[in-house]
Amino acid sequence: MTHPYGVLRLALPLVLLLATAQSCGTGRREPPAPSQSRISFTTNERFDARAVPAYGGEHRDVYGYIDGHRAEHLEQVQRWLRQPSISAEGNGIREMANLLRQDLTALGFQEAELVPTSGHPGVWGYLDQGAPKTLLVYMMYDVQPVEQTDWQVNAFEGAVTDHQLGRVLMARGATNQKGPQRAFLNAVSAIRAVRGKLPVNLMIAAEGEEELGSPHYPEIIDRYQARMREADGVMFPSNSQGRTGEVTLSLGVKGILYLELEARGGEQGGPTKAEIHGSLKVMTDSPVWRLVQALATLTTPDGNTVTVPGYYDRIRPPSDEEQRLVNARLEGWGEEEQGMRTTLAVKRWTEGLEGRELLARMIFGTTLNIDGLVAGYTGPGVKTILPHRAVAKIDTRLVPNQTPEEALRLIRSHLAAKGFQDISIKVLSGYPPAQTSVDEPWVRAAIAVLNKYGKTPVVSPRGTGSAPYYVFTQRLGLPMVSAGLGHGSGAHAPNEYMVVEPKPGSRIASLSEMEKFYVDLLFAFAGTP
Amino acid sequence: MTHPYGVLRLALPLVLLLATAQSCGTGRREPPAPSQSRISFTTNERFDARAVPAYGGEHRDVYGYIDGHRAEHLEQVQRWLRQPSISAEGNGIREMANLLRQDLTALGFQEAELVPTSGHPGVWGYLDQGAPKTLLVYMMYDVQPVEQTDWQVNAFEGAVTDHQLGRVLMARGATNQKGPQRAFLNAVSAIRAVRGKLPVNLMIAAEGEEELGSPHYPEIIDRYQARMREADGVMFPSNSQGRTGEVTLSLGVKGILYLELEARGGEQGGPTKAEIHGSLKVMTDSPVWRLVQALATLTTPDGNTVTVPGYYDRIRPPSDEEQRLVNARLEGWGEEEQGMRTTLAVKRWTEGLEGRELLARMIFGTTLNIDGLVAGYTGPGVKTILPHRAVAKIDTRLVPNQTPEEALRLIRSHLAAKGFQDISIKVLSGYPPAQTSVDEPWVRAAIAVLNKYGKTPVVSPRGTGSAPYYVFTQRLGLPMVSAGLGHGSGAHAPNEYMVVEPKPGSRIASLSEMEKFYVDLLFAFAGTP
Repeated sequence: MTHPYGVLRLALPLVLLLATAQSCGTGRREPPAPSQSRISFTTNERFDARAVPAYGGEHRDVYGYIDGHRAEHLEQVQRWLRQPSISAEGNGIREMANLLRQDLTALGFQEAELVPTSGHPGVWGYLDQGAPKTLLVYMMYDVQPVEQTDWQVNAFEGAVTDHQLGRVLMARGATNQKGPQRAFLNAVSAIRAVRGKLPVNLMIAAEGEEELGSPHYPEIIDRYQARMREADGVMFPSNSQGRTGEVTLSLGVKGILYLELEARGGEQGGPTKAEIHGSLKVMTDSPVWRLVQALATLTTPDGNTVTVPGYYDRIRPPSDEEQRLVNARLEGWGEEEQGMRTTLAVKRWTEGLEGRELLARMIFGTTLNIDGLVAGYTGPGVKTILPHRAVAKIDTRLVPNQTPEEALRLIRSHLAAKGFQDISIKVLSGYPPAQTSVDEPWVRAAIAVLNKYGKTPVVSPRGTGSAPYYVFTQRLGLPMVSAGLGHGSGAHAPNEYMVVEPKPGSRIASLSEMEKFYVDLLFAFAGTP
Repeated sequence: MTHPYGVLRLALPLVLLLATAQSCGTGRREPPAPSQSRISFTTNERFDARAVPAYGGEHRDVYGYIDGHRAEHLEQVQRWLRQPSISAEGNGIREMANLLRQDLTALGFQEAELVPTSGHPGVWGYLDQGAPKTLLVYMMYDVQPVEQTDWQVNAFEGAVTDHQLGRVLMARGATNQKGPQRAFLNAVSAIRAVRGKLPVNLMIAAEGEEELGSPHYPEIIDRYQARMREADGVMFPSNSQGRTGEVTLSLGVKGILYLELEARGGEQGGPTKAEIHGSLKVMTDSPVWRLVQALATLTTPDGNTVTVPGYYDRIRPPSDEEQRLVNARLEGWGEEEQGMRTTLAVKRWTEGLEGRELLARMIFGTTLNIDGLVAGYTGPGVKTILPHRAVAKIDTRLVPNQTPEEALRLIRSHLAAKGFQDISIKVLSGYPPAQTSVDEPWVRAAIAVLNKYGKTPVVSPRGTGSAPYYVFTQRLGLPMVSAGLGHGSGAHAPNEYMVVEPKPGSRIASLSEMEKFYVDLLFAFAGTP
């Protein structure tokens, strides 16, 4: 679930232009389906990332150190990858938390401690360098589970292997997120080795439950928020390059509300303890039908427009800044969109959307998705049962100014109004969207360093994904940047990799180049006004 | 899926009284939901099973033989139970088929052979006794899978164990259906041992795929139908006693149509190859939503009335005979219905039905049931994906004069009319209902033997379940009886059992009494006009 996008503090007056498309009652099931309104644009101006002056710093002594320690730095990344840390299974979690803590101590952090939470522990570290600026680094030390049989290599071996893009580290966590994070610490160690001191103070606030939806990260913030408020910005090290080397800088994330809806037999009817014979449907209510019918009231027949009254009401139209960013992104959008269709094996986007309308929907649209659905017998062939329960996992992505509380309230009232009080709703995860303005000096500093390397980024107000960055942007009021050179793929999938030695001619950064970028980024941050 | 009910040949003029309750369009989702019409009765007369004169035959020499061979006969049943024959897994199928074939040879059957089908083999046996009457015995030699961890004993050990009802055989297949079937063959062997000859010729036509919905049983019929037409009646040995010894004689079965509905990404949108990230719902169609929306069009919001136009049109009202049977069954219905509610852990029947309306719905009602539903992530916690496929298994029980062909046609046209052509429909099983008239001499013979043992049965035109008995009643035109003393439970569940030595004072038959009943039944059949 990692979607390492930055954050934008909203200060613009907001006008609700987005019309809602409600479509209950008469003809609800008849095509053509109602659809969400098109997203209104009021400007065709474009943000120009090239106009941000390239970062001028050169730190050759540090670069030289990095070049001289390639093998050792690679080994540092491998050491992390060889330590499993599967949060969903609790596998290696404490070991990885301790490994991170010990690494911080080894790097000279004056504070390095495990942070107890209601779930897996966090890790807190503080490196006081007597610098005027303090950077808070968000990290996650957990990874997704693996299906080892689908892998070409042992997922926890830290294998370096040949790939069409060059030599890659192929391992769970290679790109999500141990690779870029340890590359960042390699950069820190290089500066410390050569200069003795970083140009900034560092705070590290790592969690071990990102892949679970960060349910207890707020507890870590609770504990350190007074300290964290002393920071000047937040960073999440990440591989932001695509396969051809292009860089995307996302300034925000959507929020999310993840629910489990469950129908069970009860006073209202249906079997209450176990499945019963399917033929008994003739006289017995079915929790599966109830769930299906309840779910069906939530969207139009095409599944693309939310029919919960008021669901679109709080969505604000794109701000001027967002419009300028989207207009700029349009340049390479055709190719990007085609690439996505190929990668995802999708033949046609929702409602046949294309061009700016598609891009705008992607960035400004809310969703209602069924992640999982299960009831009864799901094996091959015939088994005739009437199940006593049915469960749906659904998630909705929230854009400004939606909130998980409001989304939950609307869904709950709607189901109740439709007579589905028997469906239980459990909240598994929920947090609001987060954004940082492209005008933040910290964001401009990141763009400046990218421009230095000839990697002018595509800047997006947000991507489609979610992360709980509101804790930084809203609770702490800090600008957040999620950046880094480097390319990897396969997060949550088999054969996850991160390129460490790209093929000659590739625009993808090597591990050493990733580290040099982080060196510059730290100095650039130190130089922000 | 075994529902060993008999069969009734319909000769009455039928008038369509059952109104359909269609409820599409306007207000479709608003409670109160439309419901099926009440089933009309035109008579309050009751069928009186006590009026059938008790069978007068006494076959003491055979009974004596049975009493003298208790241990050996029990061992014969155990031998069957120790041979696994799980059709779903193909486990032990051929071994069990051969075991049955060899047993028939040992019993003197002149013909005993495996019958190849497109699936598991059948077994055909013929015992020519030069008798005027021929009885065709339907058997199934397969059993349901087991979850051994849920069992008190090894499911294939043939354990005899203590139970609140007495000593029981606890094993997979104990009651469904090896126990009663082997008890029947024990009765055959006793008659052969004492008298040399049976009073009837026997045909055995066994299948090894009953638990899969009998997909290839028609092939067995195809092969032997000329021979089978020489038979005078069909029998399925089964334990028809409840826990307190009461006997139910079901004269028919419902038909079934079992479908797999699948939604996948395709030209119309949605991911086509694999799940994609859930956040991409913002621009990507969801096969899960499509399936949910398609399913939702099939029933009222309560899931209890089928909204497919014309679905109830072919259902005929209860015949006079059926009404008389239902009226008679009403006597103990309150207790029976309460017992069912307790056993099934159901607090309230559909629409709050009770009394005769409930009983009538049970017997004369069609169904649309979701047996299973699956898409995407179904494990614990949070995973955000947009699945590329979603599958529902649904079954509908068919009552006279519904047919699987018509039901399929109606469902298919309805989904197409609602714009769900993208949902694929696969037929996994389908056959029409079957019934035998209570006035058939073969049925009266069975009731007569039950009356001899003071076990006057509750006679029902049919139960809720399905079995492909139309091959006997419709294709071969034969009356069918599914009868037997004995009690067992746990078919398809852990700790399946059949009582072999009931506690003193119990009205449940022992294994020896079951066998004596079958002896009488064979002689009674021989004596039918």
